[in-house]
Amino acid sequence: MLRECMENVRKTTPLIHCITNYVTAGDVANMLLACGAKPIMADEPKEAAEITSCAAGLNINLGTPGERTIAAMHAAGRRANERGHVLLFDPVGVGASKFRREAADGLLAELHFDVIRGNISEIKALCGLKQKASGVDALAADAVTEENLSEALAFVRTAAEQLHSIVAVTGGIDLISDGSRCYVIRGGRAEMSRVTGTGCQLSGLMTAFVASNPQNALTAAVAAACVMKTAGEIAWANLKEEEGNAAYRNRIIDAVYRMDGGTLERMAKYEVR
Amino acid sequence: MLRECMENVRKTTPLIHCITNYVTAGDVANMLLACGAKPIMADEPKEAAEITSCAAGLNINLGTPGERTIAAMHAAGRRANERGHVLLFDPVGVGASKFRREAADGLLAELHFDVIRGNISEIKALCGLKQKASGVDALAADAVTEENLSEALAFVRTAAEQLHSIVAVTGGIDLISDGSRCYVIRGGRAEMSRVTGTGCQLSGLMTAFVASNPQNALTAAVAAACVMKTAGEIAWANLKEEEGNAAYRNRIIDAVYRMDGGTLERMAKYEVR
Amino acid sequence: MLRECMENVRKTTPLIHCITNYVTAGDVANMLLACGAKPIMADEPKEAAEITSCAAGLNINLGTPGERTIAAMHAAGRRANERGHVLLFDPVGVGASKFRREAADGLLAELHFDVIRGNISEIKALCGLKQKASGVDALAADAVTEENLSEALAFVRTAAEQLHSIVAVTGGIDLISDGSRCYVIRGGRAEMSRVTGTGCQLSGLMTAFVASNPQNALTAAVAAACVMKTAGEIAWANLKEEEGNAAYRNRIIDAVYRMDGGTLERMAKYEVR
Repeated sequence: MLRECMENVRKTTPLIHCITNYVTAGDVANMLLACGAKPIMADEPKEAAEITSCAAGLNINLGTPGERTIAAMHAAGRRANERGHVLLFDPVGVGASKFRREAADGLLAELHFDVIRGNISEIKALCGLKQKASGVDALAADAVTEENLSEALAFVRTAAEQLHSIVAVTGGIDLISDGSRCYVIRGGRAEMSRVTGTGCQLSGLMTAFVASNPQNALTAAVAAACVMKTAGEIAWANLKEEEGNAAYRNRIIDAVYRMDGGTLERMAKYEVR
Repeated sequence: MLRECMENVRKTTPLIHCITNYVTAGDVANMLLACGAKPIMADEPKEAAEITSCAAGLNINLGTPGERTIAAMHAAGRRANERGHVLLFDPVGVGASKFRREAADGLLAELHFDVIRGNISEIKALCGLKQKASGVDALAADAVTEENLSEALAFVRTAAEQLHSIVAVTGGIDLISDGSRCYVIRGGRAEMSRVTGTGCQLSGLMTAFVASNPQNALTAAVAAACVMKTAGEIAWANLKEEEGNAAYRNRIIDAVYRMDGGTLERMAKYEVR
Repeated sequence: MLRECMENVRKTTPLIHCITNYVTAGDVANMLLACGAKPIMADEPKEAAEITSCAAGLNINLGTPGERTIAAMHAAGRRANERGHVLLFDPVGVGASKFRREAADGLLAELHFDVIRGNISEIKALCGLKQKASGVDALAADAVTEENLSEALAFVRTAAEQLHSIVAVTGGIDLISDGSRCYVIRGGRAEMSRVTGTGCQLSGLMTAFVASNPQNALTAAVAAACVMKTAGEIAWANLKEEEGNAAYRNRIIDAVYRMDGGTLERMAKYEVR
């Protein structure tokens, strides 16, 4: 299942249009190339719809939002919806400002997203739950753990229903649901949070996987999350004694580049709940 | 010849002003530093002309264009032309939107470019040939191969005449012409296209090489292309088993940093046609 | 002293809001994560003040300035001052254009900076001394050397008084003063200037160190400078024969990630003057 999703990306080399932040744009592009997809970044409102017309998927990321890029997100998002292209939303730091919340509300009101991926605090903020904002990381109090797993599962299912979208809450444990089935994905490394943009990279990856597996969107989203967690483990094992988060950043992308379907199937740790 | 071009960059450490996309700006800056040049990135229309006044060359890249940066390109380009500075144009994805085509038309109408560097599909789009746009990569149908080499050579010569500029079409085989002579450069690795921004990096490199070899612009452009292909080969040879496109990105820049003129002369594979 | 400053960053994991250039934003974010802090990048004027409210420090960098980001710097800077958050200014290339000088003048007129960090040419330009602008690097004629050290020390002390801020002039030799005491920090490697953004990274690091050591701002700024110089030495020692400035970039960040307080105390080379 996971293997097939991955092979479909490599076979179809989907072009993924990203309207994303300038902090991690290069890493997202290299991650897309690593998995076999092709990136195009473009955030000018005057060309956003035309650019996305030729793409297979559109990845919208709220990392460094501005009025101009939000206008581009609307223009491209409408076109992606019209054409039936895959549309993913990554509401980075949505709890951190009124501006981001309003931008997210506007996008959710106008567009249909196939997948919404964020950390647990971002998804809670998106669902209108009271969240004390604190940067772009999940709050410790929110973190999905083995102890609060049942509660978190219920939340993610409800969020998927409420947002009419597959919801992927990623972090120490990933939960991905379409409102009925919910996948629990374990593995990865806590140190991945010491690399900027692993979330953004995963959003890029997930857009490509869903775009190349249109009949199996939920499975494809799960496969992308498993690729990322597996890459985090392989990259950590490859890390030399003197290396830190900068080498780790490269090694995670490299692990995706080198990963074959057999390794993915063998190392992925997921269950359906 | 190549060696001298390279040594002139290291002797004169030219300051290169780049108005470029935010996806690969950091890599372009590090590539310029690797070859011995110095980068300055600045895209505010209000300072673009003044910034470029102190530079030896100006590198304009259409990767993530916006109205503001295009205004900066015009302002800086005019000043570069007035001062006789080297001016290079990299029409990234110009076939992908009306906005990019109009931006390119506007720049070509007002400015004289010493060098225009792009993939074959971009240069064809620039010459007004009908092109089905598809992201920022060359179309497979356009690719320069040993089979269609004569035809491609004729095209590049004509393009150079039509655009009043040295034209560098880069890809699997690079073709660089000033309208009379045409250089064919082989080598490199296909895997370079799995690293985002190798084209942008080459444009930076080429601006520096031409800026430091003003009397030999065509040769300098060829030398820059040879440096890039040679770096791609050296970097690939240095790649470890577990490494992929992220490590390759670093190793290409590192290979330029370490390259000496003798290695370049020995490994470069070019001919004049 | 240095050890304690470093440990306080790791204990308090301060959130640092950066309004910085798009060339090195990703590296600044990874450097902040390497030292134990957390980054948030946000440059939209409509959210800048709210974003910075939740942060412990604000890092303002003039690397690729625009009218929109300068408005964000004012909005966030005012809020940081109101809240008593640490505020650092990195006047990248301030001598290179009238636009940057006016932006810097406006920021200095409205805001109180805890620390101003730049190369010697930038700090001289900020103090209104006549400077021939040349990109973003210090002029060779300005460089702080053992020969002109007394003169440079006097200048930095005066600059700190004039600018009502700790002033950190960094380069081959770093000088950091609050107007009375002045620290001289040696070490590091000249090759660090072949990596784009080491200055920007140090500004991020310094904001985090001062934010986590509010009672010892001068010492904390010195500690950050010592961390950077030490990392430059460790990273250089780890560099393989085939590696250049791209690998060096990663290894510097990695060295900060791996550095412990004992290593820092043992390797740092500073004196008070």
